[in-house]
Amino acid sequence: MASTCEASAVHSGIAQIALKLFSADAQAADPAVTKIISILLLCTSTFFVIALHYVNKEWKLGRDIKLSLEALFQRVPDISGSINLPKVDGNDEKKGGTVNKPLSLIDPASPSLVQCYSPSSLSKIGTVPNLSAKEVSEMALRSKNAQQVWKSTTFAQRRRVLRTLQKYVVSHVDEICLLCAKDSGKTQVDALLGEILTTCEKIRTLLHHGETWLERSPREVNPMMMHKTAYVEYVPLGVLGIIAPWNYPFHNMLNHVLSGIFSGNGVVTKCSEHTSWSSMYFHNICRAALEENGFDPDLVQLCTGMAETGKALVECPHIDKIFFTGSPNVGRHVMKGAAPFLKPVVLELGGKDAMVFCDDVKLNEVIPWAMRGCFQNCGQNCCGVERLFVYESIAKDFINGIKDKVASMRQGCPLGDDVDCGAMVMDQQCDLIQALVDDAVAKGAIVHCGGKRNTTTLGQFYQPTLLSGVTSEMRIWKEEVFGPIMCVVVVPGDNDDVCVNMVNDCPFGLGSSVYSASKSRALAIGSQFNTGMFTANDFGVNYLIQSLPFGGVKESGFGRFAGPEGLRSCCLERSMVIDRIPGVKTTIPGAIDYPMNTTQGMGFGKGLVELFYGDTLWGKVKAIVNLIRHG
Amino acid sequence: MASTCEASAVHSGIAQIALKLFSADAQAADPAVTKIISILLLCTSTFFVIALHYVNKEWKLGRDIKLSLEALFQRVPDISGSINLPKVDGNDEKKGGTVNKPLSLIDPASPSLVQCYSPSSLSKIGTVPNLSAKEVSEMALRSKNAQQVWKSTTFAQRRRVLRTLQKYVVSHVDEICLLCAKDSGKTQVDALLGEILTTCEKIRTLLHHGETWLERSPREVNPMMMHKTAYVEYVPLGVLGIIAPWNYPFHNMLNHVLSGIFSGNGVVTKCSEHTSWSSMYFHNICRAALEENGFDPDLVQLCTGMAETGKALVECPHIDKIFFTGSPNVGRHVMKGAAPFLKPVVLELGGKDAMVFCDDVKLNEVIPWAMRGCFQNCGQNCCGVERLFVYESIAKDFINGIKDKVASMRQGCPLGDDVDCGAMVMDQQCDLIQALVDDAVAKGAIVHCGGKRNTTTLGQFYQPTLLSGVTSEMRIWKEEVFGPIMCVVVVPGDNDDVCVNMVNDCPFGLGSSVYSASKSRALAIGSQFNTGMFTANDFGVNYLIQSLPFGGVKESGFGRFAGPEGLRSCCLERSMVIDRIPGVKTTIPGAIDYPMNTTQGMGFGKGLVELFYGDTLWGKVKAIVNLIRHG
Repeated sequence: MASTCEASAVHSGIAQIALKLFSADAQAADPAVTKIISILLLCTSTFFVIALHYVNKEWKLGRDIKLSLEALFQRVPDISGSINLPKVDGNDEKKGGTVNKPLSLIDPASPSLVQCYSPSSLSKIGTVPNLSAKEVSEMALRSKNAQQVWKSTTFAQRRRVLRTLQKYVVSHVDEICLLCAKDSGKTQVDALLGEILTTCEKIRTLLHHGETWLERSPREVNPMMMHKTAYVEYVPLGVLGIIAPWNYPFHNMLNHVLSGIFSGNGVVTKCSEHTSWSSMYFHNICRAALEENGFDPDLVQLCTGMAETGKALVECPHIDKIFFTGSPNVGRHVMKGAAPFLKPVVLELGGKDAMVFCDDVKLNEVIPWAMRGCFQNCGQNCCGVERLFVYESIAKDFINGIKDKVASMRQGCPLGDDVDCGAMVMDQQCDLIQALVDDAVAKGAIVHCGGKRNTTTLGQFYQPTLLSGVTSEMRIWKEEVFGPIMCVVVVPGDNDDVCVNMVNDCPFGLGSSVYSASKSRALAIGSQFNTGMFTANDFGVNYLIQSLPFGGVKESGFGRFAGPEGLRSCCLERSMVIDRIPGVKTTIPGAIDYPMNTTQGMGFGKGLVELFYGDTLWGKVKAIVNLIRHG
Repeated sequence: MASTCEASAVHSGIAQIALKLFSADAQAADPAVTKIISILLLCTSTFFVIALHYVNKEWKLGRDIKLSLEALFQRVPDISGSINLPKVDGNDEKKGGTVNKPLSLIDPASPSLVQCYSPSSLSKIGTVPNLSAKEVSEMALRSKNAQQVWKSTTFAQRRRVLRTLQKYVVSHVDEICLLCAKDSGKTQVDALLGEILTTCEKIRTLLHHGETWLERSPREVNPMMMHKTAYVEYVPLGVLGIIAPWNYPFHNMLNHVLSGIFSGNGVVTKCSEHTSWSSMYFHNICRAALEENGFDPDLVQLCTGMAETGKALVECPHIDKIFFTGSPNVGRHVMKGAAPFLKPVVLELGGKDAMVFCDDVKLNEVIPWAMRGCFQNCGQNCCGVERLFVYESIAKDFINGIKDKVASMRQGCPLGDDVDCGAMVMDQQCDLIQALVDDAVAKGAIVHCGGKRNTTTLGQFYQPTLLSGVTSEMRIWKEEVFGPIMCVVVVPGDNDDVCVNMVNDCPFGLGSSVYSASKSRALAIGSQFNTGMFTANDFGVNYLIQSLPFGGVKESGFGRFAGPEGLRSCCLERSMVIDRIPGVKTTIPGAIDYPMNTTQGMGFGKGLVELFYGDTLWGKVKAIVNLIRHG
């Protein structure tokens, strides 16, 4: 994910090369001059790369001009006035409790409320309703009613709503990041990269490609059907039910709201009970964007509550499809719960992504990737790096090179001083991680640093940990950690085939990446991984290229979101056949009309089969004679 | 479906017009001369229509030439010698039992066998193994092992296997149709249209388009990712588990075997216990086609048995995805059974397809469609017409016009004299139909003819029935009949909106069709139907255009087969990102590398957000300054 930042900072590879050429001088020169030179290079190279994209038809000039003009002239309201985000600052978090024990989410005295607290301070920050099945159903019905109007809106109208959201997000980055940090314990920079950047790119992609992706898709007709026109059209399904996880409270809700409403659907989200406090605010942004553009905000609904509330959403008759993101175990319940209603489900479950460092990498180049891959969002990342495969000949140097980096990570409340690593959203997760680490250590793994809860500060913290010597006997080899643990696995003999087998020996199959000096080698290895996504020499970029579908295989679930696949999966894909030539309709030939003459009907049918599917010319000639005789 | 026959007989609409122009003379002239004229017209018009398809780029010349040359020069073995289809003729069926009570499928004396009998004579025709879970698992494992080799075959090799099958099918139409007729009770012409023609077109489509559909799909990258190449590739999933129904024993198995093996997978089919006798023979054709081309026939496996055998397939760890075709109730079990294994399922369930006749149709033109739509395969057709909506002003004439046609349908054993309508595959289905008809009659529906079991002949026969006055209070309005019942519903006031509401008032959503003199009116009505498929002025053609996805919505299930959607659903859709420019890799910018400086990281990130997603030029300039300051 972070790669984008670099990519955009230096903006294109050509500029990078040029900078490298200049670097010897540049170090000696005034830093300001260096920067100006790099900006100039950047502009020139950017121009050429952009031109290349159009020449290659990778970008479409006509559409881009149309959309640019629309963006220029479309009135996009400022919704800042309609939304009251609470002010969050560093002082907030210091008001926490005094014992290192989190609040229970449900206070038995008031079971109709969910209690919200901040994981990095354990202080209570609010309550949200714990909704009943009846309330969920009422909300879904309101969305369904609003969708009856919304489904007929134009794409330009929908884009205006998305641009309204974009405008708000871009101008409220700090506020959103602070809310995320407070509610989930993540650092502000993690929020910026994982919540803001992803959401903005999702909006940009939908603005840019969404309409094209939902255009009717013409289909070739066969010789027998030459007088017909066939196409597939994408019709809104109705109301989508989203069950969102807690690791990215802003993005994981917006993600589905955006694709859902852009494709003409209503969206009812059940947010996680662990991050419902911030979700309430974020959801108001969506409602305001609809309302300020003159649409019924009831199109989108947010259900807060516990597991029962989620179950109610799965079973609700007004919900046409379920998009679930979460753990495999809950995924099983969701699929089972949807079965009696024959409700389609998309399951985006866990991952145990492999990152592979071949023997030919430069350690100083890949170590920052290992750090970002393992510790981004404190490891609470469905495509976070859970297994780091390092080729044998560089393994020792790698451990030596990264050990101090991991050991020196600063952990603490993300609202105050600089920290590298925040808190865990769920307290129980710390216990699970501990069990996995202890099991690994008992079976021979080495803890180089970390390896236990961080008790130096109040809150749900687990120390950034470096573990090596991980083998397939250990639970941590196959079970998802979802925490700040870097697990190093050595690939014996620097053998690519062995590496492939080790990577595939895993119940999950979400993402993967291989770093090698040779692009073709990285690709050759990665092409054998049984994962839904693969990146060579980079991490997390799949998700920042929102024209790619996102999803996995095996225990990582099935179905896709993002990309045309994801947008179309919000729709009924309807096959259509109409007549091509005015005035010409098909009629049933006498030979196969009732009453039936078997000899004549079979003779006619066999003529057809021979004519269209026979493999000899003589057969086809005989077939025509048969058709004439029996037709 | 029948429409194709006409379409191909007259072959193109232009020829049809020409024939109409000539028809006044033609009737007077010698029939032979008329036919010769029509052939000449056919050839000329065909030439022009083909040319038009290429000019419009609807067909691709390069690919077509390549495939034609391949077809011409590829050695395709004749597998006739390796397959022993039993000889079936009219005499066979006369050996049946003497009481009108079918055999039970399991004889308690030998529970490891399934008994097979012919529904049109009730005579026992054989036994097949009733496989245990262990045996299913062993078969799946054999397929999995064979797939390890098969997955690396070229498309040309796979096409050779398909051409081998095609060659066999085209030259054994009679034998296959007779086997289907004997095992399922359908007429031979129904077999030819529903089993042979569909299968041949499926093969032709895969030969023609399959490789294109599985080519990698390049994706546009965003400005931030200009230095990357992104694409989706389609990788075989592994082994597909197919649970096939009994209504088309030949096609419903071949259908999935073809797309499964073409996309590089192994295929294990659980055929229906009601048609396993013929399925055994049909499966041998698939195995022989693999073997004679030098591939391991274990790639495809057939499991015979009862529900437990199907359950074992759903739960088998060697099966990567389930394609189920059958009833909604069994579909629920399949989805629920797959949930603990997080196994993706495609459910093609029932339908209650509407056929609509607007007030502006010509009755003599549409009556043959109503007949074919309702009585094709004795109504045992997932997209058979279960509800015939006739506009009020033509309803009376319609009933009068069709009554005698339905009443005069001849029913009986499909292996002897000419019959229009065969037997029901399942004996219980006759009882269900009777219950639905009785309920309708009790609530005011009128039976014009039929309406009870046909007891004039030994076997599972239900009389072709015409029912009018069907309303939403009756069970038959919403429950699937799957039998030879034409249910006429009058659309009051000839009102299109009322019609749409009536059609959508249904738990199913598979196919639909509207007949009107106005193509735009038909399309305007059909576009409001909540169904997965729609045809204007035709019936069943969606399925004969195999580039269209097949599937429904609501109780008709989810997921698609056929078309690129169906072929890709046999694959892992893998998102790939690689570097575009040689030597250029992304590196993590200092501002967001660990150790983190929050102010610097946020400043840098906000610069990125503003640069790429901000909506003012001034904002973008400030963003660049920010990036330089914090980068």
